Amino acid sequence: MKETDSGVCVKGFSACGVKEGKKGIALIVSEKEAQCALMITENKVKAAPLIVSKEHAKGKVRGIVANSGNANAYTGEDGLKDAKHMCEIAAGELGVKAEEVIVASTGVIGRRLDMEVISKQIKKVSKTLSGKSECSLAAAKAIMTTDTKPKMVSVKTTLKTGEEVEIGGICKGAGMIAPHLNHATMLCFLTTNACVPKRKIKNALESAVKQSFNMTVIDGDMSTNDMVVLLANGTAGNSDIDGNFQEALDYVTKELAKKIVKDGEGATKYIEVRVENAKSEADARKAARAVVSSNLVKTAVYGGDPNWGRIIAAIGRSGADFDPAKVSLYIEDVCLVRAGKVLAFADTPELKNAERAIASKEIKITAELNAGEHSATAYGCDMSPEYVRINAEYTT
Amino acid sequence: MKETDSGVCVKGFSACGVKEGKKGIALIVSEKEAQCALMITENKVKAAPLIVSKEHAKGKVRGIVANSGNANAYTGEDGLKDAKHMCEIAAGELGVKAEEVIVASTGVIGRRLDMEVISKQIKKVSKTLSGKSECSLAAAKAIMTTDTKPKMVSVKTTLKTGEEVEIGGICKGAGMIAPHLNHATMLCFLTTNACVPKRKIKNALESAVKQSFNMTVIDGDMSTNDMVVLLANGTAGNSDIDGNFQEALDYVTKELAKKIVKDGEGATKYIEVRVENAKSEADARKAARAVVSSNLVKTAVYGGDPNWGRIIAAIGRSGADFDPAKVSLYIEDVCLVRAGKVLAFADTPELKNAERAIASKEIKITAELNAGEHSATAYGCDMSPEYVRINAEYTT
Repeated sequence: MKETDSGVCVKGFSACGVKEGKKGIALIVSEKEAQCALMITENKVKAAPLIVSKEHAKGKVRGIVANSGNANAYTGEDGLKDAKHMCEIAAGELGVKAEEVIVASTGVIGRRLDMEVISKQIKKVSKTLSGKSECSLAAAKAIMTTDTKPKMVSVKTTLKTGEEVEIGGICKGAGMIAPHLNHATMLCFLTTNACVPKRKIKNALESAVKQSFNMTVIDGDMSTNDMVVLLANGTAGNSDIDGNFQEALDYVTKELAKKIVKDGEGATKYIEVRVENAKSEADARKAARAVVSSNLVKTAVYGGDPNWGRIIAAIGRSGADFDPAKVSLYIEDVCLVRAGKVLAFADTPELKNAERAIASKEIKITAELNAGEHSATAYGCDMSPEYVRINAEYTT
Repeated sequence: MKETDSGVCVKGFSACGVKEGKKGIALIVSEKEAQCALMITENKVKAAPLIVSKEHAKGKVRGIVANSGNANAYTGEDGLKDAKHMCEIAAGELGVKAEEVIVASTGVIGRRLDMEVISKQIKKVSKTLSGKSECSLAAAKAIMTTDTKPKMVSVKTTLKTGEEVEIGGICKGAGMIAPHLNHATMLCFLTTNACVPKRKIKNALESAVKQSFNMTVIDGDMSTNDMVVLLANGTAGNSDIDGNFQEALDYVTKELAKKIVKDGEGATKYIEVRVENAKSEADARKAARAVVSSNLVKTAVYGGDPNWGRIIAAIGRSGADFDPAKVSLYIEDVCLVRAGKVLAFADTPELKNAERAIASKEIKITAELNAGEHSATAYGCDMSPEYVRINAEYTT
């Protein structure tokens, strides 16, 4: 497996995007019918494009249209009409059926789309579609909201049969990124030229998302618009996928997830939390997410304070089953607590070393629960006053 | 029922406290044996004083000793010894048995108590005990940590039998205040001169805590040291309690809970969230707590932004069962959404009125789910950059 710069423009796909002020449109197009796997938010309030896309994902798919600046969420019947209309406009430009288009939106909740702008931008973008890397980047930029950077990852890998396949993705998301989803988070569009059998594509995506986006927390607020979609158009000519494909898909989703937390609203530091030796996988996931979700841990990391008691307290309230007297805790490679014995008291070298470790831009926290054999990793960021400033700004 | 100024110094109780720098001791003493109900944190990591107090609460109780500045949490066997030693020192000064003393701690996690300071302060305070209001206040001040104000409430009420009883309380807490507890939160010491039968005291306290502290959220971080205790010494001479007692106890705990969120770390505004017509009580509680816990709602309130989409999204992810198309939403008395129809679009009078409403210091958000007949209220505060500053400061 090696990284490439193609983004979603892997072989057999083209894309482009436009952003004008806060409003943008991205298009991703497959040169032939693609298998589609779609995962959407578990929020009871689901945005209109998600409801429309869920229907369209049942069949083969030819393209994706996404807008930024307006979530088309909590917009009732009118919103459904607008989402379908977006598919129709895109389909018209691409010469495909409206039912073959996946639609996504991100932005403010509770407002009607400006269909005139949407229509104009779709037409504009459809004329600039290409398979070039910079067009994937334009699509990634078009879906940004509070993101400060476009997010794009792609790889090439060789299946065990010797066939070479590509997987690429773009995503957006910097706030309203949450821990409690079972099936998806934020906007992420993945493409592959591999042939992925229909019976396998859903599992492949779910397995990748479980370890990546679903372990990603910025602010604990689950969105109404979260969507991850994988299109596989089979132009690579392979007949099936294997572990190498899954490994590459896992890599792409994990790297995209990391890009999201690193670009978290107001984030100054990246935090990775590894929980080891938990009693069950669920326990490991719960404990890792509790630490990475804790406002108190996030603010301590921001302040460069190795206040490890907050980490222990977060694991304690996570619901994971463990004996506090058996826990070992590390910040980077500095051991603060070993099997329940506190090493990092005031004026110890451990505390001094922990201070140095927590001062860096990327921090790995490791907790060994010593309760079993399961582990999990969660991805997050610190919380700065800037997070509050960004979200206190008038947006309604 | 009417408010009094006695605090925990209701008839038959005395108290006092001392605070020197970050370290303080509070003592509360009953002139005779009191029935005791104790609720402690659900955090898997329980501080040493909680484990000791759980044992002591099984019998009759004569007093409470609490220190601030050090949580005596995650301190292993040594911590248990220190907690027991605190009881012994207090018991020695008060002329009671160590097993008759409840012990509580609040402060930094993972450090041994300085027993020399603790001992000196207990002895000092025991010499100044009195039933005066200012001594209850001194006790309330002694247990403060990041609190900016002491918190004290007391009432007098008349039972249906005509007997007059008093209930008083002090509490502390401004951070690490959390939504997921089933049995308790923060330090709160309640006293009553009523006789409360042993079989009723636990239910009375649980019922009051369920509607007050357990609906209180500042930052979603459940502490290792949360404790609520009620001492009832029966000096009022009544033989049983009734609904009037419960009403008074509910009032005292709710008012104390409100004082806690109003003094939340960095808080500039008080938020009350009322969820009505939910399918079940559990749904109403989940939905109300989700709104009051949402960082995005809290930052929007701080910024004076009536960004109601974030409120709808929070209810949507709460796990409550409802139909988004039937929800009505109010900020104060301004209706933003009526039965799923959005009224507060840009440039509408509704949005202007909502802007005015959200600019005030105390904000009530009401959501009618129209899914059933249950309701709940949650108490919280906004999130300001000051919250981050306070928690980013070096404390280890």
